[in-house]
Amino acid sequence: MSGKINLAEKFAGFTAQWTPKIVGEIDDYDIKLARIEGPFEWHAHAEADELFLVVEGEMDLELRDRTVSLVQGEIFVVPKGVEHKPVASAECKILMLERKGTVNTGDGAPGARTVAAPERI
Amino acid sequence: MSGKINLAEKFAGFTAQWTPKIVGEIDDYDIKLARIEGPFEWHAHAEADELFLVVEGEMDLELRDRTVSLVQGEIFVVPKGVEHKPVASAECKILMLERKGTVNTGDGAPGARTVAAPERI
Repeated sequence: MSGKINLAEKFAGFTAQWTPKIVGEIDDYDIKLARIEGPFEWHAHAEADELFLVVEGEMDLELRDRTVSLVQGEIFVVPKGVEHKPVASAECKILMLERKGTVNTGDGAPGARTVAAPERI
Repeated sequence: MSGKINLAEKFAGFTAQWTPKIVGEIDDYDIKLARIEGPFEWHAHAEADELFLVVEGEMDLELRDRTVSLVQGEIFVVPKGVEHKPVASAECKILMLERKGTVNTGDGAPGARTVAAPERI
């Protein structure tokens, strides 16, 4: 059985942006943390919803028809198949819940920002 | 597509303790919020893991072989089948992630504290 997960301690363990870290799991889902800043790329995950929780800071989730702005303590679940583009004007710390095997850049061909095998911390 | 979930606003919408509220979903899982205080009862969920995140306050998750103490910003995932007993010495606000249909009092016969159909808020 895994131990408890202290979010502040986990974030203190890395500084790189856009490199999601796996910190735990629930059934077939990974609990991931990331530091994000600037614009990411448009992508979608056809097979599974994706949960975003802002732990510190603020971010936008651009969707094709609107933008969802999130601050600390706010959650948004991107439904499966919906294109989205995360953007943060300053560094933002987020928790994501994703089905195992979900790739950060979505279902398209891997690119420069793809993290195929996130580190476990 | 559902909107964003502001945890503080959702908690402001109810005061009852030990009455989990469904505030969103990700695939086959419900995102639930609860206010807890005092001891709950021993129970287990045979089929699914259960995630606890302390949003405000502190709580203990008593397990049969140890106690996991959690403060704000800490997560613990109770593995499927593991007996646990949540306890909070003062009111604590928690987020839970549970597979749809998970009953708060576990797999045994329903009792006085069972919330068979949590309200959606």
